[in-house]
Formats: sequence, C-alpha cells, structure tokens
Amino acid sequence: MLRLYDNLISGNGYKVRLLLTQLGVAFERVETDIFKGESRTPEFLARNPNGRIPTLRLADGGHLAESNAILCYLAEDSDLWPAERMARAETLQWLFFEQYSHEPYIAVLRFWAHLPELTAQQEAQQEAERPGRKARGEEALGVMEQHLKDRSFFVGERYGVADIALYAYTHVAEEGGFDLAPYPAVRSWLARVAAQPNHVAITAEVGQAPADAA
Amino acid sequence: MLRLYDNLISGNGYKVRLLLTQLGVAFERVETDIFKGESRTPEFLARNPNGRIPTLRLADGGHLAESNAILCYLAEDSDLWPAERMARAETLQWLFFEQYSHEPYIAVLRFWAHLPELTAQQEAQQEAERPGRKARGEEALGVMEQHLKDRSFFVGERYGVADIALYAYTHVAEEGGFDLAPYPAVRSWLARVAAQPNHVAITAEVGQAPADAA
Repeated sequence: MLRLYDNLISGNGYKVRLLLTQLGVAFERVETDIFKGESRTPEFLARNPNGRIPTLRLADGGHLAESNAILCYLAEDSDLWPAERMARAETLQWLFFEQYSHEPYIAVLRFWAHLPELTAQQEAQQEAERPGRKARGEEALGVMEQHLKDRSFFVGERYGVADIALYAYTHVAEEGGFDLAPYPAVRSWLARVAAQPNHVAITAEVGQAPADAA
Repeated sequence: MLRLYDNLISGNGYKVRLLLTQLGVAFERVETDIFKGESRTPEFLARNPNGRIPTLRLADGGHLAESNAILCYLAEDSDLWPAERMARAETLQWLFFEQYSHEPYIAVLRFWAHLPELTAQQEAQQEAERPGRKARGEEALGVMEQHLKDRSFFVGERYGVADIALYAYTHVAEEGGFDLAPYPAVRSWLARVAAQPNHVAITAEVGQAPADAA
C-alpha cells in the first residue's frame, strides 16, 4: 500500500491527501512532526535527501518527493490528468507557477502564522521579509484572477491537477494575512473546487494508520 | 516556427535554448531586456501574465511559460524524456526541486552579481538576505552531491531533461559566490553534461533572428 509521510498543517501534503481521496486510492498516512525535526532524521533523509514532506513511499519500496511531482505521478491515468499534449504542458506551467511564484509567498506567510515559538531574531527577520512576500503573493493572486476571469478551471475547462495544486494554499491564504476580497474570480473558483466529488478539508485526517512502525 | 522570448543572462532561458539546439529544432530567439521592463509591457503580459522569460510562442500562436514546463513539452517525444512512468516521476521531482530548493538561492545570488545598478536600500536588503540564500544554496548542492555520488545522471543513468534543468544554474554557481570544490560528484556530472552532443554554452546566441517585429 502507498504510504504518505505528511503533516496536517502542510498544504503541499494536503494536495496529495486530496488527490488520493478523490482517486479512491487507499493509503497509509504517517504524521511527521516537522517542528521536532522528524523530516531531518537519518531514516527520513534515506527516503528523501531533501528532508521534506510530503514524501510518498510506493508499493515497491521506492520513494517520490515534491508534492507536484507526486500529483502528476498519481493522476497520470485518471481524468484529473489531461490526455491532450498542450493541456498537459499548461498543467505543468501552472504547477511550476505554484511552486515558484505562489507557494514561497502565500504558503510561507501562513506557515509563519502557525509556527509555535520564535526567537526575537527570527521574529525580526520575518517582519523584514513580510512586506516583500505579501506583495509577491498578491501578484500571484492577480495572475490567477486574470486567468480565471473567463474560465471555470485552470486548464481545459475541467477540474484537474493544476486546480488541486493551486487550491491547497489559496483557500487558506487568509490565515497568512491575505485578503481574497479583491479576487472574485479566484473566490468563485475556490467554491467550484470545494464542490467537486469526494472533496475533503485540509484538516481532515484521511488515510489509514500505518500497519507497522514508520 | 517556434519563437523563444529569452534573455542571454537567464539560466532558465538557457535550459530551453540548450534543449532546442540538442533536439535540432529550429527557433527564433527574441532577446528581451528584462532590466528595462520588456517582460512587463502589455504586449508581453498578453503572452505570459506572469511577466517572465522564457516564454515560448508555439506554431499555432499559443504561448507556454515556465522553463521546466517548456522542457517537458518540447522533450516529450524525444530520448531526453523518459518513457518509463517512474523515471518520468523522478524527472519531475528533480524539476520541482530545481525551481523550489535550488533556483531561488543559486540563481538569485548570480542574478544579483549581474545587476547593473542598485540603490543603497536594495544593496542593504541583498546583504541581509545573502547568508540565508547562500546556506540554502549549499544545502541544494549537498543534496545533488549525495544523489550523484553513485550515478552518472539524475534519472535512469541517462542524460535527460532533469540534467538540463539542474545544469543551467549549477555550472555558473561560482558567478554568485558558490564554491563547487566541495562537490566533486557534481563537478564530474557537470563535465559529463558539457560533453553531450550539440552542447552549447550559456553565452551562445543560438536560434534565428525573428523574421518580423516582436
């Protein structure tokens, strides 16, 4: 069975949880305490040398990292992955946009809001970086708004992997201090994504407990 | 004919230039002065609302952005894109690693070194951010070193798209102040990539001049 090393706070983990649930694929979920360094132990680094969740253990014992690569792998033979070449390319374009122009700003400000305790130095550094990250996150939301103004979903007018990837941190952007009011097309799209069959919330503990030790 | 909106300083542009050359695909190249805002004009934003190069205009007039998405699209039917499902997933894993854990540190420090003029405030901000970006760039090089210790190329022991994506900024990392001496496996791999048929340098003006105005 597939095993997902994950953390409930992570939107990147949520992408994979949501896709597996919508595909109806059974999986074990191992909650990994990233705040206690559980993704940087020697055992974890043997699974993913980059020390990050989500990391997926496959049935053959191999591992795959990077949330958006995992989405492509899992969706490949499903309706959530486009059959047409240009639609696949556009899906990848939005997945790379998400990781480069969206996640480092929108996800990071939310992550900061969830951090348990900070030193005075960490707090000062965050305050110095916050305005720049806020501005670039708003730029990303502006690009999404522009694209969604006359579209129902990101690619080919049907729900797919690009929507899952961009939904993950956009729908909780307000937790990081972003106001979604100026982005009505984004808000309509969020509602359409949340209305898809077998949608689950980011806080839902889907998946099974692992049958053996991690 | 394909048209690549590009800038010679860009490693992201270089990825596409290098792949097109190695695939033997003819293309027009439009040098876009990103320092003068040429990627943020209304005309450019109509091609790519995210306002970045490289952006590829396809034969049908459509556009594709995000360097790594362009690589996947162009390589799809070639030997540089794996036929096997897991190798494709691993290729995508390394492409997302490159954009999330490598480029924002290794490419950005090099970009700063090439910037024409800075205000005192910009300079102060760069100096504040430099140590953190240096450390994370070195982490990325460490992950690559670990992976390449017993491998010739990133995926499946053959040269492919993952190598092109990671080569682009790694081989010029020293321009941003990174020392590659502690990474011997990375240096051997750089030499193997540079020895591939039809390899071109990042400074090479490949492609054709556009037949009409941009």
